[in-house]
Amino acid sequence: MINYEALFKISYGLYVVCSGNKVKGNGFVGNTVMQVTSYPMQIAVCCNKNNFTAELIAQTGVLSVSILPQTVSPTVIGTFGYQSGRDIDKLKDFEVRYGIQDVPVLLTDAIATLECKVNQTIDSGTHFVYICEVTDATLLNDSDPITYDYYRKVKKGVSPQNAPTYVDESKKETAPTSEKHRCLVCGYVYDDAENEIPFAELDGDDYECPVCQANKGQFVKIE
Amino acid sequence: MINYEALFKISYGLYVVCSGNKVKGNGFVGNTVMQVTSYPMQIAVCCNKNNFTAELIAQTGVLSVSILPQTVSPTVIGTFGYQSGRDIDKLKDFEVRYGIQDVPVLLTDAIATLECKVNQTIDSGTHFVYICEVTDATLLNDSDPITYDYYRKVKKGVSPQNAPTYVDESKKETAPTSEKHRCLVCGYVYDDAENEIPFAELDGDDYECPVCQANKGQFVKIE
Repeated sequence: MINYEALFKISYGLYVVCSGNKVKGNGFVGNTVMQVTSYPMQIAVCCNKNNFTAELIAQTGVLSVSILPQTVSPTVIGTFGYQSGRDIDKLKDFEVRYGIQDVPVLLTDAIATLECKVNQTIDSGTHFVYICEVTDATLLNDSDPITYDYYRKVKKGVSPQNAPTYVDESKKETAPTSEKHRCLVCGYVYDDAENEIPFAELDGDDYECPVCQANKGQFVKIE
Repeated sequence: MINYEALFKISYGLYVVCSGNKVKGNGFVGNTVMQVTSYPMQIAVCCNKNNFTAELIAQTGVLSVSILPQTVSPTVIGTFGYQSGRDIDKLKDFEVRYGIQDVPVLLTDAIATLECKVNQTIDSGTHFVYICEVTDATLLNDSDPITYDYYRKVKKGVSPQNAPTYVDESKKETAPTSEKHRCLVCGYVYDDAENEIPFAELDGDDYECPVCQANKGQFVKIE
């Protein structure tokens, strides 16, 4: 028996993982990054096979990780977490430097950055797990990193569909408790039970998604 | 250039990972657990090759993960984090249930438990990364999970030598700033700079390590 709430007790940070080069670069928001050895310094990074970034990692063999703070801006989450690099150039409006083999490294909002060379690509089904050697680790400031728990509880964020921690609501074994609307741009869920004003009564001219600032028309009723 | 402080910005929880069976079981404290796929539900768990638990995982192909709370007791950390199952029976004084293929699951202090079947064992050098299918996920209570950051900052804990995040102080590129003493039992460091009373002046009859309760004689000067 799988209780998804048990899985939510695993602690994560939140990261933008980039790959590619100066000609074509891209990145996605991920929560699944962990160190696996100290000597040599290696980390494991997980990525959905359908992500455009996975294609770029396969082509270049390099990636970067930017560690995000609690104060991460909604535009970073909205752009890197809920848009596809097949449709837009995600990097063009952000501060980026280019590292090992010209891999893009997102600097906007980052508190630390890692540049990595992929040593092993593990096929785990829907996702790849990359075992990567860290070639550069830079601390940019001493802000507190955002945890995934903080993102879910305080920022009311949900996993993108390609994340390892994405839960298909239709497969969850819990009953719905109230009317909910999901933002089609970023996945944020407005739950009437957690808000004073029901979604239906929000001012359509004023209301903005708290995560990605999409307007009310971008929401669909899910329960 | 590797700045270790950048790596410390990666967020982790803290877990006891067990393997073996009713005849011989063991567990260790780890911070490197993450979900890698949702369908099927799989997690990645990292373990030093020298850990006795790694032998048991190789023999049985199963493991369990117990997610620890902020209130985790020093005896759990001291026993599972800083002792070897080759020397003692770590499980005998704790509450344990037996799950899939009789794998021991630590219940003492746990807020949630996962039982897992190992699908892949990845050799990443000093450590194995296990890709495991979760066969049972149980929520025991709704306490906040302890983060590794909280463990380091509030509980003043350090990585055991076998952890992926262990840093050999002699290899760090930073200069020592004050006199420090390390507990040989659990690795806790008493830093004079962070305490009102220098270590040398502590009462040897009264002082106990705040992590594992070892006495003052178990400490050695490291800087």
